[in-house]
Amino acid sequence: MSELQSVWWDGDAVAYIDQRHLPEELRSERAREVKQVVNAIASLAVRGAPCIGIFGAYGVALARRVLADDAEFYAAAEAIRTARPTAVNLAWAVDRVLAAPDEDYLAEAMTIHEEQRIVDRAIAEHGAAVMPRSGGILTHCNTGGLATGGEGTALAVIIAAYRRSGCIRAYIDETRPLLQGARLTTFELARAGVPATLIVDAAAATLLSRGEIGSVVVGADRISSNGDVANKIGTLGIAISAAHYGVPFYVAAPRSTIDFTLERGEQIVVEQRDPEEVRRIGGRRIASLLQPVFNPAFDVTPNRLITGIITEYGVLRGPFEQALDDVRRRPSLSSPRVESAGIL
Amino acid sequence: MSELQSVWWDGDAVAYIDQRHLPEELRSERAREVKQVVNAIASLAVRGAPCIGIFGAYGVALARRVLADDAEFYAAAEAIRTARPTAVNLAWAVDRVLAAPDEDYLAEAMTIHEEQRIVDRAIAEHGAAVMPRSGGILTHCNTGGLATGGEGTALAVIIAAYRRSGCIRAYIDETRPLLQGARLTTFELARAGVPATLIVDAAAATLLSRGEIGSVVVGADRISSNGDVANKIGTLGIAISAAHYGVPFYVAAPRSTIDFTLERGEQIVVEQRDPEEVRRIGGRRIASLLQPVFNPAFDVTPNRLITGIITEYGVLRGPFEQALDDVRRRPSLSSPRVESAGIL
Repeated sequence: MSELQSVWWDGDAVAYIDQRHLPEELRSERAREVKQVVNAIASLAVRGAPCIGIFGAYGVALARRVLADDAEFYAAAEAIRTARPTAVNLAWAVDRVLAAPDEDYLAEAMTIHEEQRIVDRAIAEHGAAVMPRSGGILTHCNTGGLATGGEGTALAVIIAAYRRSGCIRAYIDETRPLLQGARLTTFELARAGVPATLIVDAAAATLLSRGEIGSVVVGADRISSNGDVANKIGTLGIAISAAHYGVPFYVAAPRSTIDFTLERGEQIVVEQRDPEEVRRIGGRRIASLLQPVFNPAFDVTPNRLITGIITEYGVLRGPFEQALDDVRRRPSLSSPRVESAGIL
Repeated sequence: MSELQSVWWDGDAVAYIDQRHLPEELRSERAREVKQVVNAIASLAVRGAPCIGIFGAYGVALARRVLADDAEFYAAAEAIRTARPTAVNLAWAVDRVLAAPDEDYLAEAMTIHEEQRIVDRAIAEHGAAVMPRSGGILTHCNTGGLATGGEGTALAVIIAAYRRSGCIRAYIDETRPLLQGARLTTFELARAGVPATLIVDAAAATLLSRGEIGSVVVGADRISSNGDVANKIGTLGIAISAAHYGVPFYVAAPRSTIDFTLERGEQIVVEQRDPEEVRRIGGRRIASLLQPVFNPAFDVTPNRLITGIITEYGVLRGPFEQALDDVRRRPSLSSPRVESAGIL
C-alpha cells in the first residue's frame, strides 16, 4: 500500500481525510464549497500545520472556481486564511497562492504541495542513510503524511529505512495526552506495511535499556539557532534515556522549522494546553474537574542530547550553530516557514 | 481530612471502599456475608496486595461469626484464600488468622491491619526526614492507603513531608496504561489536603529540567538483594532523568518487598499485560485490535540510579547489598512477604 494522502485536489473539489475518525474509520470527504474548507480546518478534520497550509492553498483555488465575484472571492480567501490563526503557514500558503503568476491558483497550490513532497522525500532519504539496517527504531507523536501533506518527516525516515532493508521494526510512543502515536502513527505504519509495536510513553526507557532500539528519530515543532529542539511533550525524556544508553537520537525536520530569530531553546515559549486533555480520557473523567494539571504541549531538548538533525539538505551534526547557519544560507527547496506539525 | 481508610471492621461487617468507582464516586460497602468478601476481592473492588490481605483477614473473622458449622467455616476461609491466587499475602493473611491464638480471629485480623499501619507510618516518618522542606516532590502510580490498607508507602512519605512544612506540592504521573496516578493518587492527596498537580508521564522530564522537583519518591513491587527495584512501568525513565538533573530519587518500600532470593534486578521476571490496556482507553478504541503492543507491567531501575531506599527500619543508602542484608537480619515489624502493591 502507498502512503496515505491526507489532502488532494479532486477535479472540482478539495478532498481530504477526516482525521477525527481515525483510526476507527478512514473517511475521505470532498469540499466543494469554501464553507466546507473553512470548517474542515477549524474542526481539526484536517490537522498538522504543513497539511493545513496545502489544504488552504487548494481551498483558494476552489474559491476562485466557484466565486466569479472578486469581492466574494477575496472574502473567502480571508476566511480560509484565518480559519486557524495560530497555524502560521496557513496564512503564508494562502498569500502565496493569491500572489500566483497569471493568477493560476490551482497550479500554485499544486506547487506548494509538490514542494512539500520534495522536502519530505529528501528528509526521508537523508535520514534512512543514518538509520540502523535492522532492529528497532523508536519514534514519538505523529510525523507522517497526515501531518505534512507530503510523506512526513521522522515517520518518512522510518518508512524509507524499512524499505531499504526490510528488517526494521518501528516502536511508537502512544503520545499522551492526545494519543497521536496510538491513533495516527500506528495507522500510517500499518498502511505503509511497516512492522510496528505500540507502547505507552513510560515504556520507552525500558525498551532502550534492553538494547532493542538502534536509533530514535522524532520530528520538531521549532528549532533554535543553536540546535535546541522544541517537540511534543515527552521528547526530552526519550533523549535523556537514549543518551544514557548510548542510542543515537535524531531529529527530522525541514528548514522551515528552524527559527533563526531564537538563539537558544530557553527562548521558545511553551504553550500550556487545556487541563481537561489530561483529566478526561476517551470521554471518561479520570481526575476531578478541580484537579490542577501541568499540561505543556512541548518540551525542549538541548542540542547536546541530539546526535543529528535530518533536514532536506542532509544530516547536520553538532555543534549545530554553524551547521544551521549554513542551512540558512542555502536556497529554499520549499516554503519559508512551517510553524508546527503538531496534531492541533 | 484524614487519610482514606480502604478497609475496616465495622461492627458486624467488613467495610471497604469500592475502588472501581473512583474517582467519580467514593462508595463504601459493607460485606456481611462471605460471598460478598470473595466477590469484592475477585472483582477488584478491593485492590492492592497488602490491602487485600487485610481485607481477607477480616473476611475470615466475619466467616467465623456467621458460620457456626466448622466445615462451612473452613470452606469459606478457603474461598477467601483463593479469591485471587496471585496475591501471595492474601493466602498468608488468611493462614495467619486461622492460626490465631485462642482462635480470636478478629483480634488477629486487627493485628495484621495495625502492623501494616505501623510499617507504613515508620516509612512515612523516615521518608519525610529526607524529603525537601519545600517545593515539588514527584511520584508515580498509586502507593497510598488504598493500596496498602495502612497509610501507604511513597504517598505516605509525601503526605508526611507536607505536614512537616506545609510548603510541599506533589506532582503525580498519571501512570498509563491503568492511570492509577490520575484516578487514585490525585484522589487520595485531595482527601489528605496536599496540593498536587497531575501530569502525563511524558512531562516528568521537563518538570525535572526546570528545577521544580526537589525529590522523586516512588514505591516498589519487588527489590532484589543488590537494591535493583522493579516498579510500575515508567519508573526507570524517571530515575534516569532525575539522575541527569541531579535530583534525588528515593524508593519507599517495606522489608516484605525485598526478595532475598534474587541477586540482581535482571532476574526479576517482568509480567506482560493485556495489549488491550494500551489499545483501548476510557472505553474508546484508539488503536487497531491487530496492533502489536509491548505492555510490560514493570520496569527495573538499577541500584546506581537510586539515592536511597526508605524502609520501616530507616533510609538505606547505597551500595545496597550490605544495607539490605542488615535489614534481613532485623526482627520483623509486620508481615513476612507482601508481593505487590500494584493496582491489580
